Amino acid sequence: MTLTGTTADECIEQAQQTDADMVEHRIDLMIQTNDIERVYRECTRPIVATNRPSPPGERRKGGERRRIGLLLDAVYAGATHVDIELDAPRSSLDRVIDAAREAGCEVIVSRHFYDRAPALPELLSVWIQMQQLGADIAKIVTMPRTLQQATRVLSLYTHKGRSSGDLIAFGMGPVGKFTRVAALYMGAPFMYVCQSDGQEVAPGQLSLSVMRGIVEALS
Amino acid sequence: MTLTGTTADECIEQAQQTDADMVEHRIDLMIQTNDIERVYRECTRPIVATNRPSPPGERRKGGERRRIGLLLDAVYAGATHVDIELDAPRSSLDRVIDAAREAGCEVIVSRHFYDRAPALPELLSVWIQMQQLGADIAKIVTMPRTLQQATRVLSLYTHKGRSSGDLIAFGMGPVGKFTRVAALYMGAPFMYVCQSDGQEVAPGQLSLSVMRGIVEALS
Repeated sequence: MTLTGTTADECIEQAQQTDADMVEHRIDLMIQTNDIERVYRECTRPIVATNRPSPPGERRKGGERRRIGLLLDAVYAGATHVDIELDAPRSSLDRVIDAAREAGCEVIVSRHFYDRAPALPELLSVWIQMQQLGADIAKIVTMPRTLQQATRVLSLYTHKGRSSGDLIAFGMGPVGKFTRVAALYMGAPFMYVCQSDGQEVAPGQLSLSVMRGIVEALS
Repeated sequence: MTLTGTTADECIEQAQQTDADMVEHRIDLMIQTNDIERVYRECTRPIVATNRPSPPGERRKGGERRRIGLLLDAVYAGATHVDIELDAPRSSLDRVIDAAREAGCEVIVSRHFYDRAPALPELLSVWIQMQQLGADIAKIVTMPRTLQQATRVLSLYTHKGRSSGDLIAFGMGPVGKFTRVAALYMGAPFMYVCQSDGQEVAPGQLSLSVMRGIVEALS
């Protein structure tokens, strides 16, 4: 479940109040980042550190250097997983991956296609790049407009050439919603959910309770 | 939604009481079949006529000849779809398919693997045979024991060589349950559900209300 607090205190409170098996800390949603390490020290569940870059045109204090610095703080403070974008600068990728290896933290290499659903060869090429970087988990997210496009991202799970390593592949938006459930059954080690309806941090994200309801109905 | 009545009256009552978009009439669950045509005449929804053969060792009155006769009665009385097994005798297949063509009824050619989940080449070969027979809908159902086996049957929807014609492919049992939902999004024209919990006619079948709840949560 994604923590959406803007301060360490808010994030810690959210993490303490949820009974999710795992949480994701979105550092980029914070307004105060001076004591983010506390979130990781006080969290008793597996916790993914994520710090998405600012959208083009919007600049955050410190830029890329500061962004990666915060991720490294999270890794050294006890994050169990760290998320780094495939298209981040090579130096960022190297620093995060090296730090994670040293700290015994799992590396999620991610690629989001916010406005399109690439064809299979492009998806496969992205996946291979992630594996070559040594990702423990490859996260590939698309924006399907048709059920065929949504199904395409799921086809990665049944791809013949599938090699080792975990894969989290799904589609966003209304058309992709079902893939968030299907992915969980097709091989994804976990799925991203929000605290409650209206708290989505990505289009089509399900809430923890809705996802649990579906999983229970299917058990 | 599957009608499980043992008489025409019971089936008609079930069909009138449900608000499912479509119903399936399981002729083989009936005790009295003397007036089955009424079910089809009085049903205002699309209705699938199904008459599964008896399990080995158990014989029903009239055998295969009678079984097909009842299916033909259903077709001529107004069934919108008729289900015939791929491994039925060739004469049965021919008679049902010819009658359906004549009556403007869609043909579902089905194959159930009640105790195993065949490998992909076998699934593809089954599918091709169904297409060669001229099935409007190919129905392929397996019994997966692992998530990998469950995912395999879904891979048919993303198969490169997929040609025209509708496909209903899913897995039964506890492990296959999620495929009954995923199939609906991956291309299946409809999914089989039961009237309510405890009324399942196949392992892992969801009830209409549970399926609707999931579809609503994913909409």
